[in-house]
Amino acid sequence: MTSSPVTIGLLGCGSVGGALVELIAERADAIADTTGLRLGIGSVAVRSAAKSRSGLSDDLLTTDARAVVNDPTIDVIVEVIGGIEPARELILEAMKNGKPVITANKELLANCGAELYGAAAAAGVDLLFEAAAAGAIPIVRPLRESLLGEDVRRIMGIVNGTTNYILTKMAEEGADYGEALGEAQRLGYAERDPTADVEGFDAGAKAAIMASLAFGARVVAGDVYHEGISEVSQADIAFAHRLGYEIKLLAIAEVFGTGTDREIGVRVHPSMVPADHPLAAVRDSYNAVFVEGAAAGQLMFYGRGAGGRPTASAVLGDLIDAALNLGQRSHRRVPGGGQPAKIRPIDELESAYYLNLEVDDSPGVLAEVAGVFGRHGVSIRSMEQEGLGREARLVFITHLARERDLQATVSELRSLGVVTGVRSLMRVIGE
Amino acid sequence: MTSSPVTIGLLGCGSVGGALVELIAERADAIADTTGLRLGIGSVAVRSAAKSRSGLSDDLLTTDARAVVNDPTIDVIVEVIGGIEPARELILEAMKNGKPVITANKELLANCGAELYGAAAAAGVDLLFEAAAAGAIPIVRPLRESLLGEDVRRIMGIVNGTTNYILTKMAEEGADYGEALGEAQRLGYAERDPTADVEGFDAGAKAAIMASLAFGARVVAGDVYHEGISEVSQADIAFAHRLGYEIKLLAIAEVFGTGTDREIGVRVHPSMVPADHPLAAVRDSYNAVFVEGAAAGQLMFYGRGAGGRPTASAVLGDLIDAALNLGQRSHRRVPGGGQPAKIRPIDELESAYYLNLEVDDSPGVLAEVAGVFGRHGVSIRSMEQEGLGREARLVFITHLARERDLQATVSELRSLGVVTGVRSLMRVIGE
Repeated sequence: MTSSPVTIGLLGCGSVGGALVELIAERADAIADTTGLRLGIGSVAVRSAAKSRSGLSDDLLTTDARAVVNDPTIDVIVEVIGGIEPARELILEAMKNGKPVITANKELLANCGAELYGAAAAAGVDLLFEAAAAGAIPIVRPLRESLLGEDVRRIMGIVNGTTNYILTKMAEEGADYGEALGEAQRLGYAERDPTADVEGFDAGAKAAIMASLAFGARVVAGDVYHEGISEVSQADIAFAHRLGYEIKLLAIAEVFGTGTDREIGVRVHPSMVPADHPLAAVRDSYNAVFVEGAAAGQLMFYGRGAGGRPTASAVLGDLIDAALNLGQRSHRRVPGGGQPAKIRPIDELESAYYLNLEVDDSPGVLAEVAGVFGRHGVSIRSMEQEGLGREARLVFITHLARERDLQATVSELRSLGVVTGVRSLMRVIGE
Repeated sequence: MTSSPVTIGLLGCGSVGGALVELIAERADAIADTTGLRLGIGSVAVRSAAKSRSGLSDDLLTTDARAVVNDPTIDVIVEVIGGIEPARELILEAMKNGKPVITANKELLANCGAELYGAAAAAGVDLLFEAAAAGAIPIVRPLRESLLGEDVRRIMGIVNGTTNYILTKMAEEGADYGEALGEAQRLGYAERDPTADVEGFDAGAKAAIMASLAFGARVVAGDVYHEGISEVSQADIAFAHRLGYEIKLLAIAEVFGTGTDREIGVRVHPSMVPADHPLAAVRDSYNAVFVEGAAAGQLMFYGRGAGGRPTASAVLGDLIDAALNLGQRSHRRVPGGGQPAKIRPIDELESAYYLNLEVDDSPGVLAEVAGVFGRHGVSIRSMEQEGLGREARLVFITHLARERDLQATVSELRSLGVVTGVRSLMRVIGE
């Protein structure tokens, strides 16, 4: 097969960019054999050209990223700088110049996706971002293409490796949250400031991107309700196991109604997942995205959601795709930015709930507590009681209830004299 | 969005074809909104036009399939007849006429894939077959596109729902093989003649298709070694559980070496899978494909591998893709049929093994048995012994060993006076 050379302009050379440079060197011959493409790095924009980079000759490095996106010898741009600016401006400029762009930048897409998709469509170039939704897991292409005819009703994802690692350590080794976080930091799975991961911001950005693709409507990071895992305790995990659940941080995107009444709910929070659900078996830093379609049924996509080489692998797949499209003068259909989605607020969303209360151990308490649930229309599916000396613990699982009603129930429970404390409250995933 | 009409010629109207007709009716408006395509059925070739079909007016039905593929008003052909002829000739003729083809026909692709891929490339039309590898699970598109740059080393799939249903019933409800098969037949999961499923032919065809895609070489159904599940006993399952495994019928495709030394091994057989492996959690009639890549790491794709509506959903995704490509006058890159793969025969493949022997309960027996393993270079990882009155049971798990050496070990064991019987032999999947 004759090889057509394709010259890459790389913006950023951190862990993903560096891994991509290595991977292209390793795989160039195989890719040329399979596809007829000869991939080569033409230019790499970095913050400091003084730092030496293995596998890259110094004359490829530049600190002028704008020059790279305007360089007529560059065929394709890969953006792995991260953050919103200057990534956004550089990508827009590259596309205006007719260059396809591959990006792994979830923050940018979750905030400015519609603008970028629109600009790609206007310029008639590829904007590919498989690495931005769930790392190495091919989920963007299936959502964009395979499931285009499918009525996707719900997506539930474990899309943050750091928090899944922490929850796995807590569940399997009895570590408490602080210990597990510390270990994740020592292993490089968690950042020194872990806020973006443990408070659900990272998962929220990915949820916004996937919801936009799956439902064909514009969902942005700010639309996502989120709670993190820092309040999850060993006691919660022990109760979850006893009741047949695992605790996972889930990103959930759902669609309700059709036509002009259609609403989308997007949220990230710790969830109790039935032990025989496929998501319950996703351990350590692995990610998985569970998709429910009206005709396809349940689908799940599992793999590495982060890490230099896995992420670079997803970028490389997109890169080959864009390069082949360039050769055919075609490009992928870009997802319509769509109209801004009508977001159903968390208060209106329904879930089953787990509630763990400490109460006085005296006659009539259960009736009093149950009465509060009843007054707010929250129906109880199961209850367990255990003695704690002069107090007792009541553990409830409810049927589906509206968040607003549940919160009202909890407020009233807190005000009851017989309730010592509401120890925890967690949403429960049904079948 | 203005709608461009796309007229479909459907070959075959059984469970998948019928579900597709329904699905198109349900989803036509949504698809027009999202993609600007107005899908319509132009003609349906059936064996008997006398039978009435819900949702189809009689004047769409014809018994002349050849007329459909030659009809200039038909834009796209969907083939769901199954089997090799006349499907093969009809598809070739349709593509020669410039019509893209969607097929769910695994038997045809596993036997004549290279010819069809070549004809599609020559005609410059789409030949899409997402539904042929693992039903509703999007695995073809990821293998064809997302992982094109990836060095895929191994694929392991649970790709037959009937056998997975039977093994799940045996494992969870203690049913024996015959009972579980009977129940699968009553529920419509297994055919009256279940041979194609339970003896691994169906899984073998899917393995050949996936190996061809993943390794870019021509692998056909006849290259696949297969063993079915009819010999799997309750005793095997009990031992598997005790040792921390689940028994699954796996289709395994592996690549060894590189360049001209490259060999491919493809096999289907019952396997002991570690209980914490993601494949172990795939229950009932669900399917999953586990892919191991050098850079991407472990990936898994999970969902419904069969059934009218799930399969029709995969066909519909391909149909929209082909229709959009028609509008853009582009088409998917077809996988090179590739050179015929150099197949590594089963004798040369390596695996760990589980062996269950009944032996005389007398001193020196273990040493004699262990000596046989040693003579054939098969190394023992673990052994358990249990008394059976005057006999004893020895259960071995070996380290990786070559099939030929293991078979020689078993032959010699059978010839030993102290060995009453080799009760079972099963391959064990490592980490």
